[in-house]
Amino acid sequence: MTLEEILAQFKDGQLDIDAAATAVRASLTQDLGHTVIDHDRERRTGAQEVIFGEGKTATQISDIVAAMLEHGSNVLVTRLDQDKHVALTNLPTGASYHAQSRTLVCMQTPKPKPATPIAVVTAGTSDIGVAEEAALTAEFFGNEVERIYDVGVAGLHRLLGRLEDLRRARVLVVVAGMEGALPSVVGGLVDKPVIAVPTSIGYGAAFDGVAALLGMLTSCASGVSVVNIDNGFGAGFLANSINRL
Amino acid sequence: MTLEEILAQFKDGQLDIDAAATAVRASLTQDLGHTVIDHDRERRTGAQEVIFGEGKTATQISDIVAAMLEHGSNVLVTRLDQDKHVALTNLPTGASYHAQSRTLVCMQTPKPKPATPIAVVTAGTSDIGVAEEAALTAEFFGNEVERIYDVGVAGLHRLLGRLEDLRRARVLVVVAGMEGALPSVVGGLVDKPVIAVPTSIGYGAAFDGVAALLGMLTSCASGVSVVNIDNGFGAGFLANSINRL
Amino acid sequence: MTLEEILAQFKDGQLDIDAAATAVRASLTQDLGHTVIDHDRERRTGAQEVIFGEGKTATQISDIVAAMLEHGSNVLVTRLDQDKHVALTNLPTGASYHAQSRTLVCMQTPKPKPATPIAVVTAGTSDIGVAEEAALTAEFFGNEVERIYDVGVAGLHRLLGRLEDLRRARVLVVVAGMEGALPSVVGGLVDKPVIAVPTSIGYGAAFDGVAALLGMLTSCASGVSVVNIDNGFGAGFLANSINRL
Amino acid sequence: MTLEEILAQFKDGQLDIDAAATAVRASLTQDLGHTVIDHDRERRTGAQEVIFGEGKTATQISDIVAAMLEHGSNVLVTRLDQDKHVALTNLPTGASYHAQSRTLVCMQTPKPKPATPIAVVTAGTSDIGVAEEAALTAEFFGNEVERIYDVGVAGLHRLLGRLEDLRRARVLVVVAGMEGALPSVVGGLVDKPVIAVPTSIGYGAAFDGVAALLGMLTSCASGVSVVNIDNGFGAGFLANSINRL
Amino acid sequence: MTLEEILAQFKDGQLDIDAAATAVRASLTQDLGHTVIDHDRERRTGAQEVIFGEGKTATQISDIVAAMLEHGSNVLVTRLDQDKHVALTNLPTGASYHAQSRTLVCMQTPKPKPATPIAVVTAGTSDIGVAEEAALTAEFFGNEVERIYDVGVAGLHRLLGRLEDLRRARVLVVVAGMEGALPSVVGGLVDKPVIAVPTSIGYGAAFDGVAALLGMLTSCASGVSVVNIDNGFGAGFLANSINRL
Amino acid sequence: MTLEEILAQFKDGQLDIDAAATAVRASLTQDLGHTVIDHDRERRTGAQEVIFGEGKTATQISDIVAAMLEHGSNVLVTRLDQDKHVALTNLPTGASYHAQSRTLVCMQTPKPKPATPIAVVTAGTSDIGVAEEAALTAEFFGNEVERIYDVGVAGLHRLLGRLEDLRRARVLVVVAGMEGALPSVVGGLVDKPVIAVPTSIGYGAAFDGVAALLGMLTSCASGVSVVNIDNGFGAGFLANSINRL
Amino acid sequence: MTLEEILAQFKDGQLDIDAAATAVRASLTQDLGHTVIDHDRERRTGAQEVIFGEGKTATQISDIVAAMLEHGSNVLVTRLDQDKHVALTNLPTGASYHAQSRTLVCMQTPKPKPATPIAVVTAGTSDIGVAEEAALTAEFFGNEVERIYDVGVAGLHRLLGRLEDLRRARVLVVVAGMEGALPSVVGGLVDKPVIAVPTSIGYGAAFDGVAALLGMLTSCASGVSVVNIDNGFGAGFLANSINRL
Amino acid sequence: MTLEEILAQFKDGQLDIDAAATAVRASLTQDLGHTVIDHDRERRTGAQEVIFGEGKTATQISDIVAAMLEHGSNVLVTRLDQDKHVALTNLPTGASYHAQSRTLVCMQTPKPKPATPIAVVTAGTSDIGVAEEAALTAEFFGNEVERIYDVGVAGLHRLLGRLEDLRRARVLVVVAGMEGALPSVVGGLVDKPVIAVPTSIGYGAAFDGVAALLGMLTSCASGVSVVNIDNGFGAGFLANSINRL
Repeated sequence: MTLEEILAQFKDGQLDIDAAATAVRASLTQDLGHTVIDHDRERRTGAQEVIFGEGKTATQISDIVAAMLEHGSNVLVTRLDQDKHVALTNLPTGASYHAQSRTLVCMQTPKPKPATPIAVVTAGTSDIGVAEEAALTAEFFGNEVERIYDVGVAGLHRLLGRLEDLRRARVLVVVAGMEGALPSVVGGLVDKPVIAVPTSIGYGAAFDGVAALLGMLTSCASGVSVVNIDNGFGAGFLANSINRL
Repeated sequence: MTLEEILAQFKDGQLDIDAAATAVRASLTQDLGHTVIDHDRERRTGAQEVIFGEGKTATQISDIVAAMLEHGSNVLVTRLDQDKHVALTNLPTGASYHAQSRTLVCMQTPKPKPATPIAVVTAGTSDIGVAEEAALTAEFFGNEVERIYDVGVAGLHRLLGRLEDLRRARVLVVVAGMEGALPSVVGGLVDKPVIAVPTSIGYGAAFDGVAALLGMLTSCASGVSVVNIDNGFGAGFLANSINRL
Repeated sequence: MTLEEILAQFKDGQLDIDAAATAVRASLTQDLGHTVIDHDRERRTGAQEVIFGEGKTATQISDIVAAMLEHGSNVLVTRLDQDKHVALTNLPTGASYHAQSRTLVCMQTPKPKPATPIAVVTAGTSDIGVAEEAALTAEFFGNEVERIYDVGVAGLHRLLGRLEDLRRARVLVVVAGMEGALPSVVGGLVDKPVIAVPTSIGYGAAFDGVAALLGMLTSCASGVSVVNIDNGFGAGFLANSINRL
Repeated sequence: MTLEEILAQFKDGQLDIDAAATAVRASLTQDLGHTVIDHDRERRTGAQEVIFGEGKTATQISDIVAAMLEHGSNVLVTRLDQDKHVALTNLPTGASYHAQSRTLVCMQTPKPKPATPIAVVTAGTSDIGVAEEAALTAEFFGNEVERIYDVGVAGLHRLLGRLEDLRRARVLVVVAGMEGALPSVVGGLVDKPVIAVPTSIGYGAAFDGVAALLGMLTSCASGVSVVNIDNGFGAGFLANSINRL
Repeated sequence: MTLEEILAQFKDGQLDIDAAATAVRASLTQDLGHTVIDHDRERRTGAQEVIFGEGKTATQISDIVAAMLEHGSNVLVTRLDQDKHVALTNLPTGASYHAQSRTLVCMQTPKPKPATPIAVVTAGTSDIGVAEEAALTAEFFGNEVERIYDVGVAGLHRLLGRLEDLRRARVLVVVAGMEGALPSVVGGLVDKPVIAVPTSIGYGAAFDGVAALLGMLTSCASGVSVVNIDNGFGAGFLANSINRL
Repeated sequence: MTLEEILAQFKDGQLDIDAAATAVRASLTQDLGHTVIDHDRERRTGAQEVIFGEGKTATQISDIVAAMLEHGSNVLVTRLDQDKHVALTNLPTGASYHAQSRTLVCMQTPKPKPATPIAVVTAGTSDIGVAEEAALTAEFFGNEVERIYDVGVAGLHRLLGRLEDLRRARVLVVVAGMEGALPSVVGGLVDKPVIAVPTSIGYGAAFDGVAALLGMLTSCASGVSVVNIDNGFGAGFLANSINRL
Repeated sequence: MTLEEILAQFKDGQLDIDAAATAVRASLTQDLGHTVIDHDRERRTGAQEVIFGEGKTATQISDIVAAMLEHGSNVLVTRLDQDKHVALTNLPTGASYHAQSRTLVCMQTPKPKPATPIAVVTAGTSDIGVAEEAALTAEFFGNEVERIYDVGVAGLHRLLGRLEDLRRARVLVVVAGMEGALPSVVGGLVDKPVIAVPTSIGYGAAFDGVAALLGMLTSCASGVSVVNIDNGFGAGFLANSINRL
Repeated sequence: MTLEEILAQFKDGQLDIDAAATAVRASLTQDLGHTVIDHDRERRTGAQEVIFGEGKTATQISDIVAAMLEHGSNVLVTRLDQDKHVALTNLPTGASYHAQSRTLVCMQTPKPKPATPIAVVTAGTSDIGVAEEAALTAEFFGNEVERIYDVGVAGLHRLLGRLEDLRRARVLVVVAGMEGALPSVVGGLVDKPVIAVPTSIGYGAAFDGVAALLGMLTSCASGVSVVNIDNGFGAGFLANSINRL
């Protein structure tokens, strides 16, 4: 039951005050013992609860997925390792798993699609895993995504050859490891918000993404903001949030 | 002359090809020896060149300000220390200097104002300098700004008391030092993009803003992205860029 | 023999001076070659010796457990990996092993229980392993523990819904990874000591718990102190120490 | 007016509903523009608002002090530099300033004193500034403080000579810079909670207190928790909070 | 006397063996007590001794300059603060001091000039001090230098407009602070060695040049190597060494 | 087809304008979906595209190798793990794999060889893997390489015994882990450019190559520049680039 | 042949000048291709070459061991993993392998023993692996070693109970992980040199031995110096070097 | 009175038991309120108390100096800034202040001198301040010191020219900033203990001595141990302690 239905039943006398209070609480958050699902999040913050798979057991994830499907929600699980995915036996047909980005999507209700695309751009081939997490997240929330991959700054002509695609997007997610210079260059070429995602691609002084993170934070281009290393989900989520304004 | 005027004169034969080429180049970038002003930036990236005052001499700043005023641009100088401000003798009447945020503004042409406000929020009193840099930048680009100051998480009722103001904004800039927890809490309360600005306020393990920076990057709330420590300008710039979408 | 018994026997002449000296030494510390057990610790510091399982071989742990059981002590082993636990063949019936928190408990003598509970609170589901180490430690020393799990700051209503439970505790252990903001918020809501435990949950700029650690150290709330990353034992120990005052 | 007085007047009809609402709000928080004073903090968290002097202008501090005195509160200002102290012209007679610890105290209403003392211990002479911040804070909240200074571990007999004083305290604040080993040793000698305060005393690999901080966090003694580098205030506050249990 | 002259005199009997040995030693190194001048370095490593001014007293620098001038060498002093420069009263006419890069040059014997130029490129105006140290060093060793300043990646057209100049150089010194992306982009445009110099320009997460340093070390462009932060001298020295091959 | 052939065919009418445009684009870059191969790189930057094997799947590498062989290029794959190498079934006869340095080479067209050798020097036995990556890269681009291994500074006579070999090289690659002192000593003995490569060899405070990296960046010898930790490829590439000047 | 024998044979004419030169070189260093053995090290630095097993293949180690045994040297291999040890098939009878410290010893010629013992002290049980590396190294070079294990500062009486043993040693190696406080306390109790060895024992803010390292470097006790994290070999080597003075 | 005198007087009845106890305590430690002087340290640890001047006020230092002179001790004050030195008005004639190393020495009783010298070696001119702190400390404790300055590894012949002096010393203190390579090279040339002192000389990636510190800790030479950055005193103290064995 939604909150509105509960309140109506309470007014009609179908529910007494104790039953109504219990129902209201359950409609907002659901306590699974290990996890408190926030069913009210979409109303409050504009986007529903998403399951972060890392650090949870397959059993815990399975419980949460079941509860959310039961509640009628769409389900997005990020950072879901292959072996945990295999252990999830309660998935509906239609659930799709994307191995490289470790992302699971079960759509029950499609979302209305904004008219403008989101661009997801990578510096290299190895950044695609993180980029796909961003792209799939943005698509989960109903957006059209333009993928522009392997256009790093060491071969500028590759990037300049896609300038038109870059400029058509309403918001850009730019994913890069190593020195992370791509968002600075893209930021100087477009007039739209750029969400920079450092990746842990690289070795040595790349320090698992720290070099790229620092480079993006200190970018000489304006209009660039940064999310955590490898946080494709966060970038896709924010891109949706901006695209829907 | 604008690019359009030059091309018209060239077509009319008022300019020969060499003079036209020189004029075109000058209308796009202007080389002062120490600095190459990018007069074309607004057309290309949606916002004009802004002067970063730190690390430049007063003489260099003075040259750039003069060239931009001459070119008809509005002027925003950030991180302009009091003593350099005093040394700028060529400022027009109407120029205003904000000491706490070290910001100088000279408006020649007002910008059209978006209908929706930007909220600038701080955790503490000491964060106001950075917050004002963000607020003045957003105002420079024509936005209405709602200031919500000193509402840090150690006294939640202060924040919850301003919930309506928070939710009215189309985009929020949230400024905090020390542990930088405020954007996480705000991000859980609104459905709009949150731009988090860590400040260098704090001591010891605050490490000049690193604690706040890390906290914001790893925020458990979605829809939050981060700019550099103390980068009020970057946050205000990006907030404008989002607000104009 | 306890120290008192030895001294009595020495006075009675049952022990000569050399035997008494040897017995006194043995009653205080016991040297196993690799390990010197501190049997006197409880009298001196208020709590008995506990076995830190990490970095010790199963054989060494087995030796220490045997010596402590022999001496009549209760036994708590922390950070005991599953495979080492399996290798411990000398455990008494009644010994219980908690896999998620890698904790082993063998109670021979129950401890008197303080009247007031200790609250153990987590931000997320993934923090439960560390939280259980704290809770089991506090229970080992005889305390009642109230578990309040998955109430992180991105959904404040979950936390505020447990406010009464939070306020009933005499001391609170608050466990959080990622940005570690929860102790700041809890510290602003209660008038009791808060022991903050950063966890290594998170990725990228979480830096294996450093982001949470710094956030907790620089908390804007007062009355908060911090233990090492993932140190559930230390927090539970200290909570007991405070609860018994 | 306290909240109780306002409600009484409202019930008596002395205040209408609007005036009462305004008065209630003002009795809880007071907005000075730059700062929102949390007059309700003592009721909620057991201790009143304290002013953190660093990063605030003398004018801001002066405003806050005036508002708190007006409200009948005692006033404690920490990290108040000498020159800002001199600039505060609105202090009542009886206000006392402690230069080495940069602490200002104005008592209007003495607090009831717990029966048990708090010990404040330092490793060296140079740690006394931070230790005094802790001691003065504890005294501000009404505690008796036993000072045990310059008893660092390189000369154990100095420490062992004060063992009785250490053991008499109900809670101990142990302040040390450089390698910060003192809390580990003290923690092994007493059965009470130890609050460790790393200081920025030292040079080279002391890294402004980081060596001491890490040493204290990884202490091999149990019952030790840690506050921020140089955070004498936090330690004194927490010691009071524990001592009043 | 040069080594050759000494040996000739020894063969002729003008010097006995002890005098010759002493003279040989003095012709190679000269011990001033505080400093051992390496007069043989040019023969051995291809470039003469240069004076690093930082951390030396004006008196020490004065001694070394005098000894080198006496020995017939050219003199280059780097990182020579204005006040130390003023204190050097023994400079020959013709000595020139460049304040922004803190560099002093006294030429006694001009060096033969290679046919090809060295390019010195900066991302911003604030990087010019370091760039000039590189340029003056390269010129000191006899090279022609092409200066290309303020062509950072946020406005690519500025850089692309100087492509011909970039490609004419035989070796390029690229100087950048903040995210340090410029060498990556330049490295992708030319087929010559690029020496990247990170500068300490920037704030916050620039960490005094660390962000730029890491970015340059992890550059996705090949043919790029890196020198220390702000080490304009090292870059100019190496550029000369490569240009003379 | 090369660009020249395409243009000739277009002029001859063998290709219409659309076919020509498509062919031109394909001759410059080739988009494999996951990767955009830069066939024009050699003309533009003096050296052809090389495949960085780490972070790419065997399938992706196989695709790129096939496309490059098809295009007539030589192929160099670095950081190619043994198991990925085994998975590459499309390698031509003559392809050679070097396991210790994880390098694969397929030569279709030998490169002209410069007259002067490149020296590759290591401090220890464990640095040879990285050194071989540098040596094989330099040989791939056609250079003669002199290997001088295990001549670290703790036994200077080993190094001094190879002085002649060191001085014969036109450019030196010096590879060292632990404290990374070797490039400083070599830099003081030769008059040629030294490319220093820190390795991740060592433990504890070696911090996976950071100690060596910092040591090389702050070398007291001039003429030394540095590449990323373990970046043998980058050093070999740059050495070729310098050797061909 | 030793150097002396070669020279004698050369003088006697048994060797011509070329054969002698070759023999001299071989007697000093021996080049195995991957490794240059320094047979002259003992004469020059007082102690012979030792084999660092980490980062070398079993084959390389086997080669070096064979060459050293052939040359008549004793053999010490440190950081030799169990599986590499098993792969060494050319070990003489009498070779002994110590698994916990990963140390292999083959004595061919015993060393004369100094009259005074070296103490090796540990804070905890988990530090014994590193301590044994130190102890076995010291014994390899002929010293008597007194082991004093598990006497960390959280139970001072354990340490004070061994005071006599501590004071009898001529030099002390003190091994500790976590906060590394033990050398400070020991340094204050004895009048002999203390060599502190930080270990990587601990978790969280222990940062793999960094906390202990910093604590030891900033020790408030004098007469303490430090070696690398887990460097038991270095400590044992230095202790021998001091003990033989 | 010394302890022996007190005990004699007590036996003779000149002191009663209370007076004797008080006198015994005073002869061992003396409490100045801010500082507890450890008069017994020399007997216990072989060297007397030394005053660390940094972080103490001139008044505190003055008190301690007076008490130590009164007690008949020699006085050594390290890290005593020029202005504090000027403020010390109670110095005896014969006190000598060394400005560059900020060291004050007042000898009342000369110490017996060991037969063997200590060598103090620096890499550069700028390291002399720290080196002199070491040298003066060693001399304060009665040793002969051989100074060998400015012999860094970039000019090996300077170092090799002093080989005889290096080998004559019984223990060597080697002081270096920047990459700190000198102790590795010296350690390979001598058979005596080497105490390495990193200095904060350098810039950029020298990180105030961290590069040198890490380089020394990971030295490939054996027999090298390390003290804190700029800790000349610690090195001189330890050198004395070793030299007196």
